Amino acid sequence: MSLDYTPPLDDITAVLEQFGLPGIAALADFAHVDAETIPDVLAEAGRFFAETVAPLNVVGDRVGSAHDPETHTVTTPPGFKEAYAQYVEAGWGAVTSSPEYGGGGFPFLVGVVFEEIMSTANLSFGMCPLLSQGATRLLEAHASDDLKAVYMPRMISGEWTGTMCLTEPDAGSDLGVIRTKAEPQADGSYRLSGTKIFITFGEHDLTDQIVHLVLARTPDAPVGTKGISCFVVPKFLVEADGTLGARNDVACLSIEHKMGTNASPTCVLSFGEEGAGATGWLVGELNAGMVAMFTMMNHARIGVAAEGLALAERAWQQARAYAAERLQGRASGTPKGERAPIVEHPDVRRMLLTMESEIQAMRRLIYATAASIDLAEHADDAETRREHEERAALLTPLAKAWSTDTGFEVTSLGVQIHGGMGYVEETGAAQHLRDARIAMIYEGTNGIQAMDLVGRKLGMRGGGVVADHFARIRSDLTAVGDGPLAASRDALAAALAAAEEATAYLAGVTSVDDALAGATPYLHLLSMLTAGHLMLQSAVLAAGTDREAGQQRTTRFFCEQLVPTGTALVPSITAGADALAFV
Amino acid sequence: MSLDYTPPLDDITAVLEQFGLPGIAALADFAHVDAETIPDVLAEAGRFFAETVAPLNVVGDRVGSAHDPETHTVTTPPGFKEAYAQYVEAGWGAVTSSPEYGGGGFPFLVGVVFEEIMSTANLSFGMCPLLSQGATRLLEAHASDDLKAVYMPRMISGEWTGTMCLTEPDAGSDLGVIRTKAEPQADGSYRLSGTKIFITFGEHDLTDQIVHLVLARTPDAPVGTKGISCFVVPKFLVEADGTLGARNDVACLSIEHKMGTNASPTCVLSFGEEGAGATGWLVGELNAGMVAMFTMMNHARIGVAAEGLALAERAWQQARAYAAERLQGRASGTPKGERAPIVEHPDVRRMLLTMESEIQAMRRLIYATAASIDLAEHADDAETRREHEERAALLTPLAKAWSTDTGFEVTSLGVQIHGGMGYVEETGAAQHLRDARIAMIYEGTNGIQAMDLVGRKLGMRGGGVVADHFARIRSDLTAVGDGPLAASRDALAAALAAAEEATAYLAGVTSVDDALAGATPYLHLLSMLTAGHLMLQSAVLAAGTDREAGQQRTTRFFCEQLVPTGTALVPSITAGADALAFV
Repeated sequence: MSLDYTPPLDDITAVLEQFGLPGIAALADFAHVDAETIPDVLAEAGRFFAETVAPLNVVGDRVGSAHDPETHTVTTPPGFKEAYAQYVEAGWGAVTSSPEYGGGGFPFLVGVVFEEIMSTANLSFGMCPLLSQGATRLLEAHASDDLKAVYMPRMISGEWTGTMCLTEPDAGSDLGVIRTKAEPQADGSYRLSGTKIFITFGEHDLTDQIVHLVLARTPDAPVGTKGISCFVVPKFLVEADGTLGARNDVACLSIEHKMGTNASPTCVLSFGEEGAGATGWLVGELNAGMVAMFTMMNHARIGVAAEGLALAERAWQQARAYAAERLQGRASGTPKGERAPIVEHPDVRRMLLTMESEIQAMRRLIYATAASIDLAEHADDAETRREHEERAALLTPLAKAWSTDTGFEVTSLGVQIHGGMGYVEETGAAQHLRDARIAMIYEGTNGIQAMDLVGRKLGMRGGGVVADHFARIRSDLTAVGDGPLAASRDALAAALAAAEEATAYLAGVTSVDDALAGATPYLHLLSMLTAGHLMLQSAVLAAGTDREAGQQRTTRFFCEQLVPTGTALVPSITAGADALAFV
Repeated sequence: MSLDYTPPLDDITAVLEQFGLPGIAALADFAHVDAETIPDVLAEAGRFFAETVAPLNVVGDRVGSAHDPETHTVTTPPGFKEAYAQYVEAGWGAVTSSPEYGGGGFPFLVGVVFEEIMSTANLSFGMCPLLSQGATRLLEAHASDDLKAVYMPRMISGEWTGTMCLTEPDAGSDLGVIRTKAEPQADGSYRLSGTKIFITFGEHDLTDQIVHLVLARTPDAPVGTKGISCFVVPKFLVEADGTLGARNDVACLSIEHKMGTNASPTCVLSFGEEGAGATGWLVGELNAGMVAMFTMMNHARIGVAAEGLALAERAWQQARAYAAERLQGRASGTPKGERAPIVEHPDVRRMLLTMESEIQAMRRLIYATAASIDLAEHADDAETRREHEERAALLTPLAKAWSTDTGFEVTSLGVQIHGGMGYVEETGAAQHLRDARIAMIYEGTNGIQAMDLVGRKLGMRGGGVVADHFARIRSDLTAVGDGPLAASRDALAAALAAAEEATAYLAGVTSVDDALAGATPYLHLLSMLTAGHLMLQSAVLAAGTDREAGQQRTTRFFCEQLVPTGTALVPSITAGADALAFV
């Protein structure tokens, strides 16, 4: 049994190359970045998280964060505060943030590697920086210069952390009905009152200051999502000289007892618990809170996608080590009495290879999306920016939903490889499964991702975006000859034909419900086709290198053995809503 | 949110009819059973478990069973002891046991309904009777009359409980290497010494006496499984007058901290911890311990299959209630501001219908196997007995592995329907997922089931057993006309063709590893084909009744939308072991 984590820098490096990191880093917007340092930065980050943060994963689960109802404080598990201080000290919080406020300004494609590594080391720990970065990104895009000057440098450094306060007891997927109120004050500030739930690291002892970004309604705001504004509400008011002043009126009433991610406190926050309300300041335009949220949504969804990948990677590393050590039964063809490590059994190999190939497929889908987000924001020409903005919009729901669904399944295979020991918490395999389950739910449930895909993304440019996507895949398939990748090519061609048939059906339905009824299986088909295509691309690129045989093995397994189950979803996609109706 | 459990007697009754309970109950061996009382017995059992045992499911998870390392005792959660006493008092433990020793002597098909209901109410609670019944079954088949007279009446009544002590730290799936020793004594007894792990209810406070059935080796026994004998080792020696005498030398050293089933103590038992060994008596022939184990294996595996079904049913009942209550978003076509319960959203309906149709499919597969087990043991003519013995042998690994894999997936859908609340333990949805995960592992991991199917079951009667199975399916498909079930028929015909292709491949491989490499996907294909066939049969039988529309809905969803993903596994089954080899 091994709880160690080794950052998979070989595969990561190959994938960064595949998705054009050198070209991205060479863009004018990244002129400040020395591209040659990137491998060293990643290797150093890998070391830090493997050595300092990964060992806290188990204690984080067993001890968890604790809430004191008297003082409304939250204590993180032993070692977290020290590790977080080292994280800030080393400057890891600033990797992708704006250089204008002290950030490293690296491409998001590098940031997503960073998020993968951090979440693999310790998902609960990583959730705090991930939320902070989302909050920072939102402030940078929408806040006034005055607000930015106060908050951004110390949020980028990690000295202060940030939260996203969206959900309320009655408003989860449906933010249009949130009730938290913001009353304008004579000095330009607002007084907020209301209750927010599911606030990740909404209270903790890692830092003194916590900066809440809160969705709320001003009096007489329009109903629905068009009447929601975004406010910044610090835990402590900030004095003119930058020091922390009075405690703001926001209190953590409780934290949730969850299935996993026990070290990450999931808080119920009350704004205005003590009196007239918590003091906050408007971020961006009045009633444009949802627009502000959308700024960070693609990045945040890719961050959660990386969490699915991360826990799969961690589960796989542990299962692989266990399978190589655990003796049970004998391999076929060997004499009686000679016991074999279970990795010799074909069924165990099938589980391990399923894990490995799905991990690679997830990594490619996620990194490809991150590369498109970079190009959408930073490419030199408008046409490339538009093209990649479309592509990122199309791929984001696939990356988020498929990677978190698949990541959960991979952690379950990790438990299975451990046999009875997998069910015993001491082994650690079960924690990965319990931790992984949340990623299918938060940052937009996977059902919401499927609705986003079918309801918004398919219709982009009159269906031209998805058509272009299919054309690129077809073109690449055509270029693959009758060598060892022919069967993969053919399996993908069948998936492509299925995807085109399903897309034509969805484009032609007259009832929205008929499209929504097929949304989830459609997302899975498109994800497997897209990830399979990227796996094929990897195998083509690896030809002639020392990675060729290994990459062929995972690519062929994924395309030939797993993709057909996606292709088989067409009847499910095209059955319509009546098949789901109650009788 | 609802934690209530309602036994699904409507579907159960229909399935019992479908698999011929009236005919089974009319067999000579069941002459003592008044078949007309069966519905009342099941309804009464349903009431008892729903009212008395189901409410303890949550406290069982939160408090769990606790071990005292000083006294080596285990305390079950509050309420368990009282509920167990009521269970014994009502005589529920005796339903399927031999009337010769005070049992009800009902068919196993009735027993499996009982097991489903008990596990749905409270899996952890039900594991104690389930293990006891397995131990009793083994004693009845193999023990001497003297041993039977001492143990069976009080084990059948539930006054004493039983355990199965197989696994050791080094011997899990591979029982051939167990090391526990049994030294013969002059008085005909044996002294046992060794350590057994993963012993369910190996120690507890529900009853005074616990009867352990222990696999061990006598001195000079042959190596491997042919040198294993079975012994009965009571916690307290039994005096000639039937009273409990001296404490035997068996101690519970610890219990496992697990991902779920927290109320069920999973014990490390040390035999001979204090001195010369625990006193035990041989059950059956020397070195025939594995044969004895196989007596109860089919029944036990069907019992575990029913656990997969049971937790799926519990998760579904809870999710269905939540989806009907939880308002979020609006249904398409309704005015702004009108909120809908989430059951109105097609994607939620897809999840609910996936759960419902898979539950029905599991129930049919499991009950069909149980009916064959009854007919194999009790049919009047030898030919029917042989036919059903073969069928039960073929279906048992499908029922065990597919129902537990699918049951786990269904509990995960139950979590998903609850959204963020599903991840919070207070809701209860997560407990079903955590509890369900073990069933894929114990009683032979699902990988072992697949190896059993491919390695032992396919070759029965030179492949004739599986060929007969396919022929029965084909014959039923041919009888379905071009009405509403035509698409289901066609989807099953495609699955049948795929299964025949895959079977021919497996029969033709020259390397065992090539067959084992495809074992798990083959098991899934065969399970979905078989369960789909039984769902189709249900729909045909429901024609003209008030169950027709409902049964068509679930049958069609299962056959048309889910079965094709099983059909798509052929490339995975036929890829061979080289595709899984390391490079």
